[in-house]
Amino acid sequence: MRRLKLTLAYDGSKFSGFQYQENANAVQNELEKALKKIASENSRVVPAGRTDAGVHALGQVAHFDAVVPLAAEKLAKALNSALPSSIAVQHCEEVSDSFHARFSAKSKEYVYVVLNRQIHSPFLRAYALHVPQNLDVENMKKAASFFTGEHDFASFQNTGTETKTSLCHVLHAEVNTSADFLLFHVRADRFLYGMVRSMAGTLLEVALKKRSPESIPELLRACDRSLSGPTAPPQGLYLVRVNY
Amino acid sequence: MRRLKLTLAYDGSKFSGFQYQENANAVQNELEKALKKIASENSRVVPAGRTDAGVHALGQVAHFDAVVPLAAEKLAKALNSALPSSIAVQHCEEVSDSFHARFSAKSKEYVYVVLNRQIHSPFLRAYALHVPQNLDVENMKKAASFFTGEHDFASFQNTGTETKTSLCHVLHAEVNTSADFLLFHVRADRFLYGMVRSMAGTLLEVALKKRSPESIPELLRACDRSLSGPTAPPQGLYLVRVNY
Repeated sequence: MRRLKLTLAYDGSKFSGFQYQENANAVQNELEKALKKIASENSRVVPAGRTDAGVHALGQVAHFDAVVPLAAEKLAKALNSALPSSIAVQHCEEVSDSFHARFSAKSKEYVYVVLNRQIHSPFLRAYALHVPQNLDVENMKKAASFFTGEHDFASFQNTGTETKTSLCHVLHAEVNTSADFLLFHVRADRFLYGMVRSMAGTLLEVALKKRSPESIPELLRACDRSLSGPTAPPQGLYLVRVNY
Repeated sequence: MRRLKLTLAYDGSKFSGFQYQENANAVQNELEKALKKIASENSRVVPAGRTDAGVHALGQVAHFDAVVPLAAEKLAKALNSALPSSIAVQHCEEVSDSFHARFSAKSKEYVYVVLNRQIHSPFLRAYALHVPQNLDVENMKKAASFFTGEHDFASFQNTGTETKTSLCHVLHAEVNTSADFLLFHVRADRFLYGMVRSMAGTLLEVALKKRSPESIPELLRACDRSLSGPTAPPQGLYLVRVNY
């Protein structure tokens, strides 16, 4: 038995989410089905973090244990042949038994993508949030900067989080623009359920002048989800990278 | 009655093509349905060129005649509300009765997009042709340059062209690379049925060293479709612009 680490990209619009669900089209179902096909083994695939329906991954990480004697590189190729084209294995490597995709992760990076122009793009319906209104980017940048540091993110936690504490260390939080796109990048040691999407939804309220940048530190102190903004829709969210 | 000109983008993967088909999901069906909804008129929408199933548009042009008294700008907004999100009206303007989307066009521009890297992208299955092999880009550039000028393109014409002559004036033909993408741009006064895709399929044979760049002038002289390369699949093709 050996442990293997996968780096994955997937189009979240084609899936019910990462987590295995009977009779559903989850990323985990597809991965375990492909492994069974290749290795005739019932491996359980453990991700760094579950992504919701519609949320994309550019660099999700997952591990599994298998006996299959294929070299890691060949296993990646075999998996890509067996998987639907909406999932791509970018890398596969053998790791020590102590490696755990979720518990060994030092930090994760997400980006939330907004298409900010009057006319929507027929190509990006499932890949960015379209916001036609003028956005106050400077205030949004200022608001995002308040997320950096160690805070209690209870105001940005949707029900469904399984963890005991809502303390997170945000290592990086930044808003950038590029052509018609507005990008909210965030890196943290851990994320609560719905955290990036509620941060994005709150930042968009700042950008639409519905709240001030200074409301962010207030929200962090309040620890009350009802005071922050709505959960931004899934199509704008990408899990970019997991750092170990 | 007045004539209106539309500039359109659409995701070709969602449609059976541009041309109206009963009980099919064609771009024309959707446009005429949306116009009927807004103006209660049975307008016929005439495009600069029909695109096949799976072929995308960034700047298709179409015209129609209508009595509807809405200003062109408001009509664009109303159409975008009535149309599925896989079509976007980018611009609408009133034009003279003598304007014809197809016959008034001076030239059209297409781009064929190839994703050239080992691992496919789960996001681009319907939006680029994935070619994992090493491509000889320099030879491909040289081959593309032979298309420029006025030639008989019978070797690059699929059955189904309705026109009498296969003489076309290619004003620009160029291969570029950008990150993992290889782009074949072509602008001509007119295009025959399947012309860009058979040019792209032939250029890919050059890139894979299955034929030489010098075979292009030979093919143009031969006027025999059976001698040129296969029709490249539709997902890589974009109608970029129509010039008047």
